[in-house]
Amino acid sequence: MDRSSLPDAAFVDPSGANAAAVRSMATDVLDQLLDQLAAAEDRPPLPADPTPPAVDVPDDPRDAAALKDALEGIVDGSMNPAHPGYIGHMDTMPTTASVLGDLVAAAVNNNMLSAEMSPVFTELEAELTALVATAFGLGADAGGVMTSGGSLANLQALAVARNRAFDVADSGLAATSDRPVAFASAAAHTSLQKSAMLLGLGSDAIVPVETDEHGRMRPAALEDAIARASEVGKRPFCVVATAGTTTTGNVDPLDELATVAARHDLWFHVDAAYGGALAFADDDRGLLDGIERADSVTFNPQKWCYVAKTCAMVLFADREVLDTDFRIGAPYMRAGEQRRNLGELSVQGTRHADVLKLWLTFQHLGRSGLAALVEESYRLTALVRDGVAAREELALATDPELNVVCFRAAPDWCDSSEYDALNDALQVSLLEDADVFVSLPTYRERKWLRAVLLNPYTTDAVVDGLFEHVDEFLSARRPR
Amino acid sequence: MDRSSLPDAAFVDPSGANAAAVRSMATDVLDQLLDQLAAAEDRPPLPADPTPPAVDVPDDPRDAAALKDALEGIVDGSMNPAHPGYIGHMDTMPTTASVLGDLVAAAVNNNMLSAEMSPVFTELEAELTALVATAFGLGADAGGVMTSGGSLANLQALAVARNRAFDVADSGLAATSDRPVAFASAAAHTSLQKSAMLLGLGSDAIVPVETDEHGRMRPAALEDAIARASEVGKRPFCVVATAGTTTTGNVDPLDELATVAARHDLWFHVDAAYGGALAFADDDRGLLDGIERADSVTFNPQKWCYVAKTCAMVLFADREVLDTDFRIGAPYMRAGEQRRNLGELSVQGTRHADVLKLWLTFQHLGRSGLAALVEESYRLTALVRDGVAAREELALATDPELNVVCFRAAPDWCDSSEYDALNDALQVSLLEDADVFVSLPTYRERKWLRAVLLNPYTTDAVVDGLFEHVDEFLSARRPR
Repeated sequence: MDRSSLPDAAFVDPSGANAAAVRSMATDVLDQLLDQLAAAEDRPPLPADPTPPAVDVPDDPRDAAALKDALEGIVDGSMNPAHPGYIGHMDTMPTTASVLGDLVAAAVNNNMLSAEMSPVFTELEAELTALVATAFGLGADAGGVMTSGGSLANLQALAVARNRAFDVADSGLAATSDRPVAFASAAAHTSLQKSAMLLGLGSDAIVPVETDEHGRMRPAALEDAIARASEVGKRPFCVVATAGTTTTGNVDPLDELATVAARHDLWFHVDAAYGGALAFADDDRGLLDGIERADSVTFNPQKWCYVAKTCAMVLFADREVLDTDFRIGAPYMRAGEQRRNLGELSVQGTRHADVLKLWLTFQHLGRSGLAALVEESYRLTALVRDGVAAREELALATDPELNVVCFRAAPDWCDSSEYDALNDALQVSLLEDADVFVSLPTYRERKWLRAVLLNPYTTDAVVDGLFEHVDEFLSARRPR
Repeated sequence: MDRSSLPDAAFVDPSGANAAAVRSMATDVLDQLLDQLAAAEDRPPLPADPTPPAVDVPDDPRDAAALKDALEGIVDGSMNPAHPGYIGHMDTMPTTASVLGDLVAAAVNNNMLSAEMSPVFTELEAELTALVATAFGLGADAGGVMTSGGSLANLQALAVARNRAFDVADSGLAATSDRPVAFASAAAHTSLQKSAMLLGLGSDAIVPVETDEHGRMRPAALEDAIARASEVGKRPFCVVATAGTTTTGNVDPLDELATVAARHDLWFHVDAAYGGALAFADDDRGLLDGIERADSVTFNPQKWCYVAKTCAMVLFADREVLDTDFRIGAPYMRAGEQRRNLGELSVQGTRHADVLKLWLTFQHLGRSGLAALVEESYRLTALVRDGVAAREELALATDPELNVVCFRAAPDWCDSSEYDALNDALQVSLLEDADVFVSLPTYRERKWLRAVLLNPYTTDAVVDGLFEHVDEFLSARRPR
């Protein structure tokens, strides 16, 4: 073709003709990026004044130098989870291996839609999801698919559970008079409501079950909720337990809940998006006891395994349910292959090869590295929890079980109706004046400060600084 | 933390302490990758014997050199869409800009879930989706969200259409006695059946509408199908037109179908996943006439705009429907922000910043570059079409409208019941003996050879080689 209307490095010429131009552009971008990442502590945890670049489709190509400048500004305007004071969300700096894995996956641009379009990656995904399922104790028939985020994993698990219980994959819910309901704790992730909305169950079909004082589903309350739903003619089909709630990082009593689900012959799904990482940390995996009884599990290595986003999966104890209760065939793929076409077995069709960055991260960190990161998280969590406990004017939302500490200022000199405003101001002040970012979620209708101790570069000094600033902030407001 | 159990370059230290180790690892991987990409024509379009690396979680970290070796094998075992003879699927080699955009997005690891977690990218996505919507003529109130692939875009469009028509977001379909149905051509993408299955409508709720001899939905047949469905008590709510069918790349008559949909007050969705790229090619965009009347549009820049996977979006003529007919709130995000939290408005929650590679590609290629790629596609398509037409023993499936040519060998010396086997053998032979990869989809219950003329490095010589090999193949089998 006439390449005069394209920049030299538009694509990588497969004959090597423009190798120098491509290398120059790529190296320039990589160098600048590494320089910025290696100075991430000089930028605040959240950018003060992010400004996106101009949005247009220019008539003619912009030169690579202009793009490099724009990228510099974009990185400067980004959330900065690498800053040691960034302890605000279940969002991490990524492993180097996962970033490089994404680079390679993007460059070869394979497609998880079919084995033909991603021969190595399809096989790798099948094997690696089976391996992770084994780590959860799901057994020899277990396996699953990767999904672009945990919401899709929960969606697919609930879809399979619904299809099995009501046989509605072809004919739809309108053909039944059933009113299906699923049960999850009041602290479970809102992707369950979203899934129920999408699945035609309606968001109200997720029955919220009461939690104990530490945000964990009460098995007796689950029993009651199932009984009440059945009494009014609803059709329970699924229990969702959470291993690592989003706001406080608590873990439902999986084994007890599995027993309740089994007693009522309900599908048992465990949303271990966050807490699933404990499967690779032998000293701490006791919290996951009972997960081996799950029919399906959601797990997001994009969180506590530090893999670049997105990296998530849904696993099934019997992987054949994907064929029997989910599969939609695609005629544009070569039929009769022995290998599976994952696009027929997952919510998505075309999909990026997220498996590569996961495999590379496992290889590069090893089990010992993954465990060390979890241990360090727990050490810092104890520091924060103890710092809160040592201060009369602070209160914990729950007793931390993972690496999340939710707390707030609740001093007796302030009317409790003003607590939300006080903590809102404290959160802003921590970010602006102390370079510490904690988030400000709503839990039990109140605002809390939430520290997620994920960051491998957060030090004791950051924790000390957090409490120093909290002390100063409260001291300045305390009546004398 | 004690870093002795982690490799030096596990993360990029934000103080720069391990900058040299990270740079060494990243540069090594990039160099090897660029070398392999610059020699892509030396590998076949599809790998002969792909072997995934060993799958395990080793106890201790593997060194970077071992990972680099593994990556070399993985690239060698990948689908190779950069090979000039790769003309088999709607899968492309990616733009250099999009690969670098993915590198940067992975490294900063922002999260499209909320504005707080992706300040620049959230704004960029809102602006860029609005700009694309404008390019489709959807008007000043149009906008949308990006999705990890087109299946999710179709899913979200149908979810909004269903929720608007039946008000079932909270209460679910069980609360209604309606049997909702949507209409799409028999050649439409199977993600519609998958969406209907997921949405609780059942895959049978997608009523297949008859196509003309070129795979395009017949407006009169749509009228009939709507009337028949209504007669048996079903509730039509949506018409899906396709701008670029997956198998033959044909375009439904959008304007006429919009008129039918409007007459019956049905939601009008256009799946322009593939053909949407014509919006940036002024000379050829006439095929999209009528798309401006859509209520929603699916568009995948990951296809004919050459952006690395995934890069897709769903657009709405009135973007407020995302708030009124889709939104599920998330309590763990800071409330009261002026900026939108996209995780509340899309099927996914946590999401990679796909917008960066799209923006960079638009900037780096410009409108002139995008248009030149489309023009070259059309030029090669004409060559292939004419080559088929010139040969008595070959038959076209449809008249090509985009850059897809579906054809097959149908010689009179072969019993037509043997055509599928003949074309299967021809497809294998083209790949093995001529380094040309065409795919082998099923269309109207027959197997076809499908050439997708996307590859910017496919030359006239490749097309000549294709036909030379076809001629030889048939000549060797033709009775004398």
